[in-house]
Parts: sequence; structure tokens; C-alpha cells
Amino acid sequence: MVKYILFDIDDTLFPTTEFAELARKNAVRAMKTFGIDKTEKEVYRTLEEIISRKGSNYEAHFDELCKKLRITNNARFIAAAVAAYHNTKTAIQTYPEVPLVLLKLRERGYQLYAATNGNTLKQWDKLIRLQIALYFEDVFVSEELGVEKGDTFFKKVLKKLGATPEECVMIGDKETADIAPAKKLGMHTIRVKQGKYRKEPTSAEFQVDDLGEVPGIVENLSKHQ
Amino acid sequence: MVKYILFDIDDTLFPTTEFAELARKNAVRAMKTFGIDKTEKEVYRTLEEIISRKGSNYEAHFDELCKKLRITNNARFIAAAVAAYHNTKTAIQTYPEVPLVLLKLRERGYQLYAATNGNTLKQWDKLIRLQIALYFEDVFVSEELGVEKGDTFFKKVLKKLGATPEECVMIGDKETADIAPAKKLGMHTIRVKQGKYRKEPTSAEFQVDDLGEVPGIVENLSKHQ
Repeated sequence: MVKYILFDIDDTLFPTTEFAELARKNAVRAMKTFGIDKTEKEVYRTLEEIISRKGSNYEAHFDELCKKLRITNNARFIAAAVAAYHNTKTAIQTYPEVPLVLLKLRERGYQLYAATNGNTLKQWDKLIRLQIALYFEDVFVSEELGVEKGDTFFKKVLKKLGATPEECVMIGDKETADIAPAKKLGMHTIRVKQGKYRKEPTSAEFQVDDLGEVPGIVENLSKHQ
Repeated sequence: MVKYILFDIDDTLFPTTEFAELARKNAVRAMKTFGIDKTEKEVYRTLEEIISRKGSNYEAHFDELCKKLRITNNARFIAAAVAAYHNTKTAIQTYPEVPLVLLKLRERGYQLYAATNGNTLKQWDKLIRLQIALYFEDVFVSEELGVEKGDTFFKKVLKKLGATPEECVMIGDKETADIAPAKKLGMHTIRVKQGKYRKEPTSAEFQVDDLGEVPGIVENLSKHQ
């Protein structure tokens, strides 16, 4: 009997990869508007290099960008870049089918959780910005559990839920983080072909193009048990 | 001959006091939505106490708020509060007459500057969010000049501009910070009756209800010299 449905967040509930790219591009364009004396290409490449080195949760991307590009009198450029970046990041929207899928599952009595790598506050922030936070009972985040998604992460989740693996469905885009470890423990798994891993193979029990197919799959699982 | 027009930012170009209050109220309401087990009044009062103690540029108001209220499992509350707070803060708008006033002054050949206390990046961020940053040649901020608005601040501004006091008009809402020290040095001064100091007396050369009167005053000053 399925009781708990676990969702990955990034590239599962909203197009993270696309929004992140757009946010970076808008930031660079805003710096150009304020008269930065470099080509957009050069600025964008330098920014990408900094993000890939420092990670996307680093707090001072644009300070470092100005330092690297030897831009002085930089407060206006940093402020313009941060405003454009945040304007895009705070305008994130779910994939269109997501709110109705979550509502249907809640109505049918399933308990919904998010299961995600990253920073606890930032992952809650995303659900709140997406206006879907209230559908979820709780969020399991690697920062809080002390381990990235894998066997140990999902074992801890089961313990916190007081659940057996068969009572859980894990839904995500990434084979190594979302699917393989959950499946190994005996959870049901649904892989969604979205984001930058969408062309990679999967061992998931089910594979879908978008989350619109999830309520049907979950109902079938519940009937046949 | 007037050449330079200096504007205070907070409560001069936009209703800072009102937006700050609304941002705090929205933050508290968002925490209630997520089920915080306290009255709005209690949460709001505690938040105000923290802000008055730590200052409005403190970075961890809501973390401390949760700690003070003994709220555990707090990531959702902090994220909800910060999102609501930022949504309000990033939706700031100028007083309605401001963009046209700035445009008129620029068209007539005046150079516009902001002169403000606070954090350089945050003050630039406000001008950018307000969509008026491009009207200003530069921003003089206490953080960069190393001193809050007063005699020394305005002396430094004059030196940076290479200007005589008579060539400058300082416009602001606060007698002690904006008007008295600028007037003492010989600048023209215009006090705008907005924000929390609007009922206090002033020594300003001119006093206006809003910035709509500024282009006329400046034209008269230029004619009679």
C-alpha cells in the first residue's frame, strides 16, 4: 500500500537548469546596461567559471566577477547583476502540470514529501516561491540529514517516516541520486525525463515525460497491492 | 549657477518607512500561513525589537526571531518570512512624480547624484529596483566616504564633484542629516515633507510636499544668479 510520495525538487518540480541559465544571462545583460566595458561573452564565461568552481550556493559570485575582470567602482554593477539574477530566480514557476498533480495526490490521501540535496533554507525557499510548499508535510534535505542522496539518505528518510520501502514512491530526474539508491532499498521509483540528465538511461520502475502521469501510476500501484 | 542636484534616497525618492513596515507585516503573515504557533502581534513585536536592536541591515533577523520565540524545525518559517519580506522589498516603487522630475532635470542639463547614509550595495540596489539608477551620475554613500551625512560628508562630496557649494542643491527629508549640514556649507537646500520626520521643523531654503515642485525651484535659482 503506497502512503508516502517523495519528490526531488530541482528539474523535477521546476526547470532549475533553464532558470539558472536565464538568471546568469540576465545578470550579465544588466551589467552591460550599466556600462561595464567588457563583452557579454567574456563576462558570461568568467561567471560560469566562477560558479563551476565555487558552486551555485556561493554568496559572492558577482563580487568575484568584478575582481576577476578588474572592474573598480563596482557597486552599481554588482547591485544591477544581483537584482537581475534575483528577479529571475524569484520568478521561478513549476512545470505547468505540477500544482494539479500535487493537489490530486493530496486529495487521495497520500502524504507528500520533498527529498533533495542542498541547503535547507534555499530548498524551502524554492517551494515557497513556487507556491507549492503547503502541499508538503516536510522536506528532507541533505544538509540536515548530514549526507547527500544515496542509500544512507533514504534509510534515514524511511526511519523518520516510520515507513517500509514499499509504502514509498520516489520521483526524480537523476538516476544516481534519486532512482538507484531508492530502488535498492525497495521503494517504488519514477524517473522523469527532464533537465540535463534527461537522455541518460535509468533503472527506474517507471519512466515518464512529465509528472502528469504520476497520479495514474500511483493509483495502479495501490490497486495491485 | 546650479549644476549639481543631490538627492537623499530613503523617504525622499520612495516611501521607505511604509515599505519597511509592510515588508515586516507580510513576513509575519507568511510565518502564520505556515503554521507558526504564536499570535501575529507577538511575532511582530519581537521582530521590531530585533530590528531596533540590530539595525535594518542585519542579515539574520528571522533566524534570531525563531530562536527568541523558541521555534524549532524552523527552515520553512524562515524561508517563508524571507520570501515575503523580499517580495515586498523588491517591489518598491518611487513616489509617483519622481521619474518625470529626474527626467526633466536631466534634460535641462543638471547632473544628478544620490547622497545617502547606509551600505553602498544596498543603496544602489534600491535605485536599480526603483528603475531610476540610470538617471544618476554616481551615488555618494556614507559607507564609502567613511562618515555619516554631516559637515564632513558634504565637504567630501564637494571635493569629489570639484564644485562650489552654490552650484549644488541638496534635497532630503531629514533636517539633521540632509538640510542643516548642507546649508551650513552654503549649498541650496530643499526639504521634502515625507516619511517619519515630515512634521519636524526645518531650516531649509525651500520646503515642498513632494518632489514635483523641484524643477520649478531649481529653474528659479538658476535664473536669479
